[in-house]
Amino acid sequence: MISSRQIKFINSLKSNKYRIKYNCFLAEGDNVINEFIKSKFIVREVFAIDVSKINCNYTESLSLKELKKITSFKNPANSLAVIEKKNIDFDIDKILNSKISLFLDDITDPGNFGTIIRTADWFGFSNIYTSKKSCDFYNPKVIQSSMGSASRVVVHKINLFDVLNEIKNKNIKCYGATVNGCSIKKFIADEQFALIFGNESHGINKQILEILDKNISVPSHNSSVESLNVSVAFGIILSEIR
Amino acid sequence: MISSRQIKFINSLKSNKYRIKYNCFLAEGDNVINEFIKSKFIVREVFAIDVSKINCNYTESLSLKELKKITSFKNPANSLAVIEKKNIDFDIDKILNSKISLFLDDITDPGNFGTIIRTADWFGFSNIYTSKKSCDFYNPKVIQSSMGSASRVVVHKINLFDVLNEIKNKNIKCYGATVNGCSIKKFIADEQFALIFGNESHGINKQILEILDKNISVPSHNSSVESLNVSVAFGIILSEIR
Repeated sequence: MISSRQIKFINSLKSNKYRIKYNCFLAEGDNVINEFIKSKFIVREVFAIDVSKINCNYTESLSLKELKKITSFKNPANSLAVIEKKNIDFDIDKILNSKISLFLDDITDPGNFGTIIRTADWFGFSNIYTSKKSCDFYNPKVIQSSMGSASRVVVHKINLFDVLNEIKNKNIKCYGATVNGCSIKKFIADEQFALIFGNESHGINKQILEILDKNISVPSHNSSVESLNVSVAFGIILSEIR
Repeated sequence: MISSRQIKFINSLKSNKYRIKYNCFLAEGDNVINEFIKSKFIVREVFAIDVSKINCNYTESLSLKELKKITSFKNPANSLAVIEKKNIDFDIDKILNSKISLFLDDITDPGNFGTIIRTADWFGFSNIYTSKKSCDFYNPKVIQSSMGSASRVVVHKINLFDVLNEIKNKNIKCYGATVNGCSIKKFIADEQFALIFGNESHGINKQILEILDKNISVPSHNSSVESLNVSVAFGIILSEIR
């Protein structure tokens, strides 16, 4: 049984305003929730139709009818959890000590953002830096499409322009992923660099574009096609540079 | 002005049953619709708030309030069109005469499917072959996420097992994209081959797996991550083999 107070609280966490107020977010699906349980996140409450699928001894049982009252999705999976946000301290030294750092400039689609987190995790990156206007990392659809990788990859919301300028001053090269740059097949990377990916519709903001050292692209075989999906381009470029 | 008869007809096309009955489908967004207008598809009706953005002289004007009654999306773009389906004749010779052919085994997420069509188009592939149980090509979310590429790439729904057996008999190699195959970085492809991608959750069906010549994979840098998103894996593999 889930109380009406709990239902109200959980539904409030679908909006960023209340995720900030209560410092909590939602995760759904057995695999995703089990990854958060394994991680350093504090899982406050877990509800499941089949509690045996969740590796947590305080999982509360609920019915499908109840789950449908709190899910963020059309076809809810077996389970839903309330998880505490983690404090993230941004430290520029992490970038200065990394061979490759990944930046997102105003990514807005939560599905793309989650897929990017999952892909970064696959290629062994444990940090992503996003501009202030990017989609909220704790959006239920981001958590869902990251498929558990949101429990491992740390997402830092930063002032992108300032941070890029600062690392450029420390001789880290900044490369933008655009549709008309140097082919990634021919591209020779520096020892240490930052990779910047732009918004789904508008690409990288002009102010950022102007300070980049070079633009790189996935070569197209069809001039009729305007662009690749940003998460696909992200995957192709990461596969190429790793 | 849009009539209530038109509203009813358009909303019926959100379901596959009525797309079959009326042999029509929906497309939304100026860029997507303009690509269909340029193509060999017959665009029956177009509605737009700002008609000047659509390259079609019979575009009917409507209000945002009216568009919200017919859209398939939360945040509708400027325009919506009703388009006739095209007759697609499957001809195995097309596969036998292609260096590389692309197959999808029970892809179910319309966003992934549309992104795959867009990516195939980017890499110059004009045909995709899908199993009978795959998501309907004419689903509004497939059309939307293909970003106009659905007007160019031809999707053939086939009996996947039978067709793969037939092309294997003609000495075309069949390679499956799996999580535990030979690394695409080391993989040496045959002169002519077929690439098979599986379902988002279950991968390639067992019956199909058993007849494949080889499995190929995108190498991971993190053993904690179960898999890549299928449309990202599709992009990375296509980029590698092109």
